[in-house]
Amino acid sequence: MGSAPKRRTIFFISDSTAITAETLGQSLLTQFEPLEFDQVTLPFIDTFSKAGRALMQINKDANTKGIRPIVFSTLINPDIRRLFKNSSCIFFDFFDTFISRLESELDMRSSHTIGRYHGLINDSVYSVRIDAMNYAMGTDDGISTKDYDQAEVILLGVSRSGKTPTCLYLGLQFGIYAANYPLTEETLLKRHVTLPEALVPFRKKLFGLTISPERLQRIRSGRMPNTRYASLSQCQLEVAMTESLFESETIPFVNVTSMSIEEISATVLLECKLQRRFF
Amino acid sequence: MGSAPKRRTIFFISDSTAITAETLGQSLLTQFEPLEFDQVTLPFIDTFSKAGRALMQINKDANTKGIRPIVFSTLINPDIRRLFKNSSCIFFDFFDTFISRLESELDMRSSHTIGRYHGLINDSVYSVRIDAMNYAMGTDDGISTKDYDQAEVILLGVSRSGKTPTCLYLGLQFGIYAANYPLTEETLLKRHVTLPEALVPFRKKLFGLTISPERLQRIRSGRMPNTRYASLSQCQLEVAMTESLFESETIPFVNVTSMSIEEISATVLLECKLQRRFF
Repeated sequence: MGSAPKRRTIFFISDSTAITAETLGQSLLTQFEPLEFDQVTLPFIDTFSKAGRALMQINKDANTKGIRPIVFSTLINPDIRRLFKNSSCIFFDFFDTFISRLESELDMRSSHTIGRYHGLINDSVYSVRIDAMNYAMGTDDGISTKDYDQAEVILLGVSRSGKTPTCLYLGLQFGIYAANYPLTEETLLKRHVTLPEALVPFRKKLFGLTISPERLQRIRSGRMPNTRYASLSQCQLEVAMTESLFESETIPFVNVTSMSIEEISATVLLECKLQRRFF
Repeated sequence: MGSAPKRRTIFFISDSTAITAETLGQSLLTQFEPLEFDQVTLPFIDTFSKAGRALMQINKDANTKGIRPIVFSTLINPDIRRLFKNSSCIFFDFFDTFISRLESELDMRSSHTIGRYHGLINDSVYSVRIDAMNYAMGTDDGISTKDYDQAEVILLGVSRSGKTPTCLYLGLQFGIYAANYPLTEETLLKRHVTLPEALVPFRKKLFGLTISPERLQRIRSGRMPNTRYASLSQCQLEVAMTESLFESETIPFVNVTSMSIEEISATVLLECKLQRRFF
């Protein structure tokens, strides 16, 4: 009997947060499912001494496992990069791969400054991100409907359909001011499937989220198992009433059953024709 | 007199959210500051008909400006990619560039499935993200200190030092349960610069944020101009007392004056030796 095959180690290395290196590597590795990997992030490798320690860690991994680790790098410093290129790893060098073609196309030398894409851009971008996020928190779940003037979009949906995380993500990643209003059973029944009054003046900002009753049941059961709230029949009732409301009031909506927060957010941006405030 | 040079257009194109294409493209473009670009994101280009419309938009831009647009692509479908390669744009193909080397290294064909890195991974990852984010919201600003058992880290700092966005980001991006406790003037004075009682049992989870009084003043002034709260002297007082507390109680801390939310979060992960729950 042979032993189980060793999981290869993937390193993400950067002189900054390593978010770009992780994004690059992850988007490629998802193409090789069901392979599994051990994953290690090495951020802020911005001195030779830190690079030396990182290199030792990578070499040790290679020796222990007997299989060359894969390194996704966004390191900018060419001397530090050279250390890793000559090591025992498989080195995917994001910077080196693209920068010279971009330099020749833009007819300009790149600054070779340490990656600041996920750094502090300026005060106004910082402010708008924080403001938009605070706005999402302050208008979450139908509180402060008086602040809806400022909203660029108001998400509607049943409890646990993904409204809150989507609003926070829209604020944090795009600087979009997004509020959300919960469609509870009481709201849905009381209004005889017409729009709650607080929303009427903001009809053009409304965007609906719907979800399959089965998935909604799973999500609610994780939080409040064996309750009426989490029962399939209750989820079916609320979803059916919600979709009726969207249709009768011609509110655009999307089914988020198999969507991530990122996909819901990107869809809201696209469908509501919203412009992100920064990249 | 010549006319002002036209700003080149950058397109980010993807069969999914385009977040990866944006991240990779932006991290390269920041190396070419102060160049400015018009930026257009084209997500969910997953059919020939959508690709055709995108291509028309790109060609129209090229004709109008008389300068070839740059396209950063994470498109997976080889037939769709070919359309753009043969167009009038400069095409940066993140998929094609790295995938074959990775295939040969991993000795496996990639699945060529549409980019799911920012897609729904599975129910448990979805749940932990939402849970961790709800946890951050539920323990924000010192509320529910009774839930600190569950915290992996508790951030301390003065009002507007970045605690809330960092906690939300840690939850959303890494699935880390992060609470935060505000150090107000009252807290700082009342305790004679010792630790607030609610925090004493959780000393090992504490991590401090500090910030320059000048930057704090700018941030506070944006929100509440001409108040004592936003005055430089008040900011100086609070920051000085906070740093004294961190030092006397030997709480590790970082100065966030020139850091983005991403950089603060990556630093917290690294310094507190926290393991992210997913990539």
